[in-house]
Amino acid sequence: MTSAYSHLQRTFTRLSRFGHLSAIAGWDMQTMMPPQGSQARSEALAELSVLCHGILTAPEVGDWLAQAHQETLDDAARANLLEMQRAYDNAVLLPASLVEAKSLAGARCEHAWRSQRPANDWQGFAANLKEVVRLSREEAAIRAQAAGTGRYDALLNLYEPGMTSARLDTLFGDLKQWLPDLLQRVAEKQRSETCLTPQGPFAVDAQQALSLKVMALLGFNFDGGRVDVSAHPFCGGVPEDVRITTRYNPEDFLTALMGIVHETGHARYEQNLPREWAGQPVALARSMAVHESQSLLFEMQLARSAPFLQCLRPLVIAAFGEQEALSEQNFLRLNQRVQAGLIRVDADEVSYPAHVILRYEIEKALIEGEIEVDDIPALWDEKMQHYLGLDTRGNYRNGCMQDIHWTDGAIGYFPTYTLGAMYAAQLFQAANRALPTLQQDIAGGNLTGLFDWLKQNIWQHGSRFSTDELMTRATGEPLNPAWFRQHLESRYL
Amino acid sequence: MTSAYSHLQRTFTRLSRFGHLSAIAGWDMQTMMPPQGSQARSEALAELSVLCHGILTAPEVGDWLAQAHQETLDDAARANLLEMQRAYDNAVLLPASLVEAKSLAGARCEHAWRSQRPANDWQGFAANLKEVVRLSREEAAIRAQAAGTGRYDALLNLYEPGMTSARLDTLFGDLKQWLPDLLQRVAEKQRSETCLTPQGPFAVDAQQALSLKVMALLGFNFDGGRVDVSAHPFCGGVPEDVRITTRYNPEDFLTALMGIVHETGHARYEQNLPREWAGQPVALARSMAVHESQSLLFEMQLARSAPFLQCLRPLVIAAFGEQEALSEQNFLRLNQRVQAGLIRVDADEVSYPAHVILRYEIEKALIEGEIEVDDIPALWDEKMQHYLGLDTRGNYRNGCMQDIHWTDGAIGYFPTYTLGAMYAAQLFQAANRALPTLQQDIAGGNLTGLFDWLKQNIWQHGSRFSTDELMTRATGEPLNPAWFRQHLESRYL
Repeated sequence: MTSAYSHLQRTFTRLSRFGHLSAIAGWDMQTMMPPQGSQARSEALAELSVLCHGILTAPEVGDWLAQAHQETLDDAARANLLEMQRAYDNAVLLPASLVEAKSLAGARCEHAWRSQRPANDWQGFAANLKEVVRLSREEAAIRAQAAGTGRYDALLNLYEPGMTSARLDTLFGDLKQWLPDLLQRVAEKQRSETCLTPQGPFAVDAQQALSLKVMALLGFNFDGGRVDVSAHPFCGGVPEDVRITTRYNPEDFLTALMGIVHETGHARYEQNLPREWAGQPVALARSMAVHESQSLLFEMQLARSAPFLQCLRPLVIAAFGEQEALSEQNFLRLNQRVQAGLIRVDADEVSYPAHVILRYEIEKALIEGEIEVDDIPALWDEKMQHYLGLDTRGNYRNGCMQDIHWTDGAIGYFPTYTLGAMYAAQLFQAANRALPTLQQDIAGGNLTGLFDWLKQNIWQHGSRFSTDELMTRATGEPLNPAWFRQHLESRYL
Repeated sequence: MTSAYSHLQRTFTRLSRFGHLSAIAGWDMQTMMPPQGSQARSEALAELSVLCHGILTAPEVGDWLAQAHQETLDDAARANLLEMQRAYDNAVLLPASLVEAKSLAGARCEHAWRSQRPANDWQGFAANLKEVVRLSREEAAIRAQAAGTGRYDALLNLYEPGMTSARLDTLFGDLKQWLPDLLQRVAEKQRSETCLTPQGPFAVDAQQALSLKVMALLGFNFDGGRVDVSAHPFCGGVPEDVRITTRYNPEDFLTALMGIVHETGHARYEQNLPREWAGQPVALARSMAVHESQSLLFEMQLARSAPFLQCLRPLVIAAFGEQEALSEQNFLRLNQRVQAGLIRVDADEVSYPAHVILRYEIEKALIEGEIEVDDIPALWDEKMQHYLGLDTRGNYRNGCMQDIHWTDGAIGYFPTYTLGAMYAAQLFQAANRALPTLQQDIAGGNLTGLFDWLKQNIWQHGSRFSTDELMTRATGEPLNPAWFRQHLESRYL
């Protein structure tokens, strides 16, 4: 008799194969598709998404899950079963009408936001956002009741399984204590330092060639992936074929270059997920925060460190020629410049957490029903003033309308950015303890030790362990934010 | 109550959306995918193909079809219903075991062929081909019994609905009467003409820029399509987003350029299929031969004609500079050179039909059980000698192993190439009768009249009419091979 577990394996293999097609068609949409392909593509992807939801939530899947828990399974299979159960629970809880209403409201809000943001039209945006929030609250209530958690926690768990707002409150509460002061001290220190901006233009083909060199240095497997251009950089595709993107600005090579490093961090995680469980949920990346920890480890811990910059600088000079701004000292300053600004995606790693905490506090209060959409702008202004000393009044465009996340109801996602930064710091310090010559190796361009360590400790495990267990195995303790603080203080003070 | 026909419409819309994803993932596989993505992609596409086969052959589809024939439908809907019925019948006839066996045997044969062909390994190839032919015979027998036709006709109808081998025997029998003599006369005429080969290298980026210019001249809609590079040129994608490919050889710009023209003919048909029926089978191209008629009308009737070459030549010179081989006379000769050769895909339009007739005769005899796989080489040698005066003995690589079609059982496909050439000639002559200034317009680069005529008479009809009716509406008569003969004689003698 075929076991219930093997029925589930077959079902999830099918879902993974359809997910493959969705990932490639989605990548194509951002990189290759001509404008008139858009509607048919959206319809095709939506049809596939309906199909996959139906396959995942079919009654027999629930039965097989119940039976499989009684079957004899090895540890990996049991971990896989837990991930299957999580996927099923997340999908089966919402009534189809709510899924559809959310999808429509999100699409409407996001579509309108694309013109409302440049027009600074908060009133127009708020009207759509209210509906998105209403439906997200409905979703949160259903999920919270089923999980026996708070409402915000129920959404947070979609992105970061096991994380709670109680724990975030502690983590972020601590951060809030020391971050504003740190920011001020760093600003004072950097105020006296001259930092020259490199003078362009930087030819796009030279930037592209440099990207390929840096990706090769970072171990990107070009036989199992590629790099292209898209309006918004991302890492997509499937583990067997990872597609990263960037965009090039002829006046500024550094943003694209560090973007490449960041996405290569995501890519190497994907490229090194466990192939022996390919197609099963346990073979997927552990969580959004763990994913972000890999990109931030590459970008912030590794690439903006003095030893790596020492090894990167000759490649940059070979690509664009010498200039004063590319001196060793200035190149380091360029990559470690701290400046509080309005825009999250442009933020340095010191001010970034303030952007995230602000959003976390607002979205949590929204979902818990403590505030309404109309309260957002005043809260935003107050928190930006408090955390970063910036005035955003009336500037919705570069204030509470700057991000795409809320438009389609991705509430609970923002915290993963700062959790990722914390995991990255903790992991990098652990790698340094395990590899005593790591700093010299990095300066010499020898990154094998670091990548082997990451593969051994993070990449190859997929979703085999909970994040806490993964971190404990890798670093000797679960998430400890002290490593992030130590990193920032030692780099920037 | 929802009509059976509207259930069918919904089903075929779903199939079309899944087909969209399959088309894009298939295009990606040929143009973008890194090597290690191959296995996962094949598995994903096979999974989708199994899904679509299941959707199409579900018992309720058969019921809805039976009911829908009783419903009141307008002419377009009735034409659509016929196409639905055809798709269903074609899919439902074969037992799943045969579909799977065919797919496996085809994949095995094709995969091995990729190394057997360069190794000239007929024995190895024949072993695999026997299994492919055995399964194709089985398929033909099932289809023939259901359709009440001959076995070969049943396969032919998969590609060319309504065509019969009796009609092909007449058409090709006629061709065989005059073609060898014509070939000889053309060869004699051209023997005395000097024809210089353009001297490269022709920079690939200049070739690419020229391709874009020529595609624009030919009316390709770049907002609804793109052009890329692949090992084997093709036209793929979906009507809303048509993807053509080519490959560039720095020593020879003309092959890629004429390939671009050819694929643009396919593309314009796709781009101008009726959008009001999008997603329904009636909105698809009529047949493989009608599709080929559009690419050959673009390449052979239009682009290799003196007036078009007159307008193309300055673009070529602007791209690569002047040289003697690009004189008006030599450029014309280059594009109208006739030379019997071993390879079908490299053949000129005069000798091409001989390649097709040879394959038709062999594959028909194979399917009818009159010959066996082991008989192929001797028959091939005999026919190549007879039709083209060429000796292919022992040269399997450039003889009976040169094409990919038989490897995966696409038997019944070859005739569509020459049917396409015949349709193209007939259509182009009709367009010339309808548009008295067409030749001058072409020389002046004004192709609007021609394209409007094609849109009006072919493109916009999709599968609304049978091929015979389509041709009769467009040209006043069903397929008449005299136009093809007239075209060849007037151009080449």
